[in-house]
Amino acid sequence: MNINHLWIIVCASFVFFMQAGFVCYEVGFIQSKNVISVAIENILTLVITTLVYCFLGFALMFGPTHLGIFGGNYWFLSQLPLADPSLGYVFVFFELMFAGTAVTIVSGSMSERTRLLPLLIAAVFLAGFIYPLFGHWVWGDLFLSQPAWLKQLGFLDFAGATVVHGTAGWVSLAGIIMVGARKDRFDATGKITKLGRSNIPFAALGTFILWFSWFGFNGGSLMEFNDRVGLILLNTNFSAASGVVGAILTNHFFVKDHSYLEAIFAGALGGLVAITAGSNYLEPMDAVMVGFISGSVVVFSGLWLEKLGLDDAVGAVSIHGFGGATGTILLAFLAPSEFLNGQTRLVKILVQLTGVSVNFLWAFGLGLLMFYLINKTLGLRVSEEEEEKGLNIVEFADLYSWQDYLKMTHYESLT
Amino acid sequence: MNINHLWIIVCASFVFFMQAGFVCYEVGFIQSKNVISVAIENILTLVITTLVYCFLGFALMFGPTHLGIFGGNYWFLSQLPLADPSLGYVFVFFELMFAGTAVTIVSGSMSERTRLLPLLIAAVFLAGFIYPLFGHWVWGDLFLSQPAWLKQLGFLDFAGATVVHGTAGWVSLAGIIMVGARKDRFDATGKITKLGRSNIPFAALGTFILWFSWFGFNGGSLMEFNDRVGLILLNTNFSAASGVVGAILTNHFFVKDHSYLEAIFAGALGGLVAITAGSNYLEPMDAVMVGFISGSVVVFSGLWLEKLGLDDAVGAVSIHGFGGATGTILLAFLAPSEFLNGQTRLVKILVQLTGVSVNFLWAFGLGLLMFYLINKTLGLRVSEEEEEKGLNIVEFADLYSWQDYLKMTHYESLT
Amino acid sequence: MNINHLWIIVCASFVFFMQAGFVCYEVGFIQSKNVISVAIENILTLVITTLVYCFLGFALMFGPTHLGIFGGNYWFLSQLPLADPSLGYVFVFFELMFAGTAVTIVSGSMSERTRLLPLLIAAVFLAGFIYPLFGHWVWGDLFLSQPAWLKQLGFLDFAGATVVHGTAGWVSLAGIIMVGARKDRFDATGKITKLGRSNIPFAALGTFILWFSWFGFNGGSLMEFNDRVGLILLNTNFSAASGVVGAILTNHFFVKDHSYLEAIFAGALGGLVAITAGSNYLEPMDAVMVGFISGSVVVFSGLWLEKLGLDDAVGAVSIHGFGGATGTILLAFLAPSEFLNGQTRLVKILVQLTGVSVNFLWAFGLGLLMFYLINKTLGLRVSEEEEEKGLNIVEFADLYSWQDYLKMTHYESLT
Repeated sequence: MNINHLWIIVCASFVFFMQAGFVCYEVGFIQSKNVISVAIENILTLVITTLVYCFLGFALMFGPTHLGIFGGNYWFLSQLPLADPSLGYVFVFFELMFAGTAVTIVSGSMSERTRLLPLLIAAVFLAGFIYPLFGHWVWGDLFLSQPAWLKQLGFLDFAGATVVHGTAGWVSLAGIIMVGARKDRFDATGKITKLGRSNIPFAALGTFILWFSWFGFNGGSLMEFNDRVGLILLNTNFSAASGVVGAILTNHFFVKDHSYLEAIFAGALGGLVAITAGSNYLEPMDAVMVGFISGSVVVFSGLWLEKLGLDDAVGAVSIHGFGGATGTILLAFLAPSEFLNGQTRLVKILVQLTGVSVNFLWAFGLGLLMFYLINKTLGLRVSEEEEEKGLNIVEFADLYSWQDYLKMTHYESLT
Repeated sequence: MNINHLWIIVCASFVFFMQAGFVCYEVGFIQSKNVISVAIENILTLVITTLVYCFLGFALMFGPTHLGIFGGNYWFLSQLPLADPSLGYVFVFFELMFAGTAVTIVSGSMSERTRLLPLLIAAVFLAGFIYPLFGHWVWGDLFLSQPAWLKQLGFLDFAGATVVHGTAGWVSLAGIIMVGARKDRFDATGKITKLGRSNIPFAALGTFILWFSWFGFNGGSLMEFNDRVGLILLNTNFSAASGVVGAILTNHFFVKDHSYLEAIFAGALGGLVAITAGSNYLEPMDAVMVGFISGSVVVFSGLWLEKLGLDDAVGAVSIHGFGGATGTILLAFLAPSEFLNGQTRLVKILVQLTGVSVNFLWAFGLGLLMFYLINKTLGLRVSEEEEEKGLNIVEFADLYSWQDYLKMTHYESLT
Repeated sequence: MNINHLWIIVCASFVFFMQAGFVCYEVGFIQSKNVISVAIENILTLVITTLVYCFLGFALMFGPTHLGIFGGNYWFLSQLPLADPSLGYVFVFFELMFAGTAVTIVSGSMSERTRLLPLLIAAVFLAGFIYPLFGHWVWGDLFLSQPAWLKQLGFLDFAGATVVHGTAGWVSLAGIIMVGARKDRFDATGKITKLGRSNIPFAALGTFILWFSWFGFNGGSLMEFNDRVGLILLNTNFSAASGVVGAILTNHFFVKDHSYLEAIFAGALGGLVAITAGSNYLEPMDAVMVGFISGSVVVFSGLWLEKLGLDDAVGAVSIHGFGGATGTILLAFLAPSEFLNGQTRLVKILVQLTGVSVNFLWAFGLGLLMFYLINKTLGLRVSEEEEEKGLNIVEFADLYSWQDYLKMTHYESLT
């Protein structure tokens, strides 16, 4: 065990901490009446990912490849070559946290009107099949196996802008299409109403936690501790910052509602997602550009989804889907030629477009199928009355916090 | 200074961060009218532990042993053999954070009706005597001293399921017995009322923070950075996840109230506590089993305490006391034979039972005595009127937040 | 890349996390009607610092010195000697986080009545000129350059009690003087009214996050991982703890309002700020004394500012300004003679006083000039009506959270 292992473990712990960031972010942006539901969903999807990914998904993703399409052998973490000089259990721990990130994103976007059980079933498929299989195609060779097909094509995705964030974003898109918009979000005349934002300071805390965790996300993806780590961390920070600038300017010039609030949050996260593809390859000024452009794309795509009548409660589709795709494609334009693996820039652009498209087709397509089947069997959506009441009460009989509030009001007024 | 020292320091920092986790968890589960009181109690008990443990407790726990019963010499951190190849101040820093964890747990369970000063006095005794003396018996040889009596018996507790969590849990039990239940928690007819849950998303944040910190708690307990660390972290994560599963199933089949909320939180933390005993020794599937069983035990023990009319505001007795005992005892059944130190499994089971029983007798017994004496002299409990008003107002004259709220209501309604 | 680089990176990440701590702390201590404004300000000042400090400030601070007064050359991170055995981009990353800390502090103290744009412009000047130039004078030789003038004098500031915290504190002082007190804070008769404290548990979380981050702040300032790191971390913890004790006792004996609430928070942070100057040089008992004295100074200075009619919404001037100065000066009295660089203690006392005075004159003077000019051109302050309404609504059209609250009230009452 050496400094590389220690670095991976510290980074994995930081990536785990994204769970805390997402819970704060999502809770902050939704309506009070659903915050308990969303908070607990985040715990439950982590539980599911832990068990399903470690016992099934990891083998599919990192086991010895079958035809460059799927892995195998390491079911239930058996037959792991632990004596190998590579990372063994440390590697599993690191990759588990990445899977956890992918899975936790989806439930946020569908929140406030989706039943709990369908979300948990979706988490099982995402952690056990959709995410690890696509992951195999790009990262399958990270752990002793041969490269799978997208990697062989030359597709570059350093830390998962497409593998993790794109997958999560496009499955979210399928989910919000299948479950439909929240009540009152759009009316028949096309009027758009924002909902939620119950606790923006909590969302700001979540944003800082995510930003912090991203240093582990990108830094750890080196899979060792080498002299590129300083650049990676700086690039991560630059892209987040310029993402905010890009989002604010886009909001200023192209959006009527000059409140900027959503743009600032989406810009920071969009910049972080986008730089995930190339933080290891780009120079600082290019990272600034990646952030700026993706911050802008995130705002535009958010508007576009809204116009289409699609309702994403936490902006996951635009941030993770569009932000991830933007960063992955920009990489082909901006990467120094030494990172093009001998391909011409034009070829690399086509390769990156291919990878992003395959990711969209795979994640969105399977997402649609999955949510369609769940909807036909269990039903995806809570009743209108339940949505009205809020899922805190429906799922967790939350009368306590309300009674507590009433009592407090009473006591304090006595003083 | 090498990689081992760096690992210990990073882990110690993570363990420190448990303070943040506990404050969120406790605040989330209690009533609004007491949240300021509990938040500040958490700061004050850390202050007390820092001073009392470093200047007294550490010497008792890790100084050269007297008859295998108590340590000495290092009072006020004097005479620390800093030139020693072992960890010196780094070790003190690490152990301080463990003591801080033990101490902060107690005040949570007694919150909402216990006066501040008694809680602080209890923290002094816990940090300066109860915790370090028991700790000496198990871990006294970690820092240059000879093994003390429980260690000599062969008692195994890798990272403190009994030493840290058991001690805290049983002192908490003594505390809630002596101070009595919160008003309105139980009525004369035996009807049970839940109280609090003022901010479940905050409790979820706390749970994720604690889960994150636990990687340091268990990982750092290796006292070096070696090739078992990946297994330890995975086991920690598995047990937390399966703890939730065990708690939910137990709740589903044996509890009438199918709200699951408490079970989910208690299961995660119970799983984390239980695996603390053996994360270094068990295989992943055994860690899953430890979590599952302890998640179930935590739910059952919580119900049992409630039936006995014992009121634990944050579930500390079931999570830390029963969860810790379960993990410590299960270790004897599940540990591979190479970790039995040459004892037969039956003997190891008896040894583990002995250690857990001694821990209970010591912590619960001294806890009862301590709170009895405090109660007879200072009084433990606030007046009924004070409890009604809430400790935010009683202790910290919190009119501001209330006035602020009223003003905000007024301003916003103008818009 | 070796263990030293890894240590610096982990510490830098911890220091980044101070952003999360400050947002919680500030939000907790201000009025609800401004929490969204303050939360977003914290994100925006980080964005500004990232861009301005990396592209301008870093060169001024750490570029090859011109006459010991200002650096140069590394504009836009160009010409960085990356092949150098020193830390390169890792060093930039670390120093960026320190600049981020300095900049984020100012906006808190001026919050609740200052317009957003002026605060952002102030952040530009602070990150691009005021902070890095003073920083050059003390730390200019940390990265290949020759020592600048204050360093040549022998001024000691290990991790930035004066460079980071003093600078931020005195600029804050200038800011609160120029913008004036919040409405209703002081009335014509001299009556003092506390405002805010909307979420003290959130502030407690912020305090624990800051305390945690401080281990990186002080530990990383070693610029390598050596055998002083354990002492540094223990000293940091001791000073925070004894800061609380000092503040409570001061509050008890010298303040009529025995609520202790502010004193406890200010004492912890004041102790952390003060030990920043000397955590590398002092023995544990001296760290206890530094914390105790500075905890007391912070309480007294807070009272004094209030008497002068100065309104600091989060106590930044007393905590960072007075706390930082106290720690820096005490260092000269308490440091073992081997750290006096061959100067007599009297000379060292004069040198430390000189450094602290220069810091005050520079930061407060330029702060006054800057805020005066901004006030004359853009105007610093929101209108009285805007202040009344709250900046959540004024800046971010926050009707959502309020509507959300009303709806929740309605729905829950139906159950």
